[in-house]
Amino acid sequence: MVSSNSLITKKVIAYSFKSLLRNKEFQKISIKEIMEQADLRRQTFYDYFSDKYELLTWIFNQELTETIDHFLSYEKWTDVVYRLLNYFYKNRLFYQKITRLSDIDSFETCLINHSEILIKTALIDNQNSNLSEKQQNDNVLFFAYGFSGMIRNWLLTKCISPPDEIATYLVSVINFTLLIP
Amino acid sequence: MVSSNSLITKKVIAYSFKSLLRNKEFQKISIKEIMEQADLRRQTFYDYFSDKYELLTWIFNQELTETIDHFLSYEKWTDVVYRLLNYFYKNRLFYQKITRLSDIDSFETCLINHSEILIKTALIDNQNSNLSEKQQNDNVLFFAYGFSGMIRNWLLTKCISPPDEIATYLVSVINFTLLIP
Repeated sequence: MVSSNSLITKKVIAYSFKSLLRNKEFQKISIKEIMEQADLRRQTFYDYFSDKYELLTWIFNQELTETIDHFLSYEKWTDVVYRLLNYFYKNRLFYQKITRLSDIDSFETCLINHSEILIKTALIDNQNSNLSEKQQNDNVLFFAYGFSGMIRNWLLTKCISPPDEIATYLVSVINFTLLIP
Repeated sequence: MVSSNSLITKKVIAYSFKSLLRNKEFQKISIKEIMEQADLRRQTFYDYFSDKYELLTWIFNQELTETIDHFLSYEKWTDVVYRLLNYFYKNRLFYQKITRLSDIDSFETCLINHSEILIKTALIDNQNSNLSEKQQNDNVLFFAYGFSGMIRNWLLTKCISPPDEIATYLVSVINFTLLIP
């Protein structure tokens, strides 16, 4: 019970913060404001996060877990790629604002980590057993960097291409790579 | 004459800065020190750079141009990959120090840009003409992100694998990718 309640509280805080970010710069948002809008005591913030940066990192990890990791066990990895790109498209204003802040590099790290999980699943699905473990790990890393780099670049260039087009491209590169002997 | 002299002056400043970085933290190095060790007037620094960050970006671009771009017209791109990895290995203490600084993201940008030039050359060499221009550009970007991500990761993990091993891996991934129909 307690842990599910604390997840709900963290989500309320995150929701309030994200909605404030729509009209205000990151640096100008105070903890006081976040908590007032969430209708929670200011002190409660510090029960869960030490500062706004930690809250941001939590949002990245939580939402990528819910968009990628939770689906990988019962959905095809190719569908998860489409789901992910559409999630980013829906949240593009938030991510565009965040990726432009030079002092926040936790988004890059989170995206690479979750991309690794996705690509590892694609490799396992494919039973690409000719490769040594070292080669498989190198491939996971290489394609996670390519995958997350393309997504960040797409966000920074204002998502000009539609999300499904980017997803189709990423699926095709990974699919082809699974053939590496 | 003037431009060749100014290139020499910039290189002397860069050399002095890099040698100071061996024993001192980036933040603690002053322009005064850099110029004293280079035996140049302090004011000369500002003829070329506005601050230490601009000097760093110049070093990245200059050295990657000399290691990648200058060789691509008369050496095989595969040889340039080995040259690049050995250059980084020789300069690993400098790059390890730099990539750990959170307020410096120009190295990532420079490395991606020069990797794009390298991978574009690999694609052209291969005359992979079945692809549309858009697909080719997407591939260049995807593999430049993978390529530069692997190199940064290798630098950050203290270059445990030998440089030629990383180069062989990167050449094999790109080579295989050139077959993408």
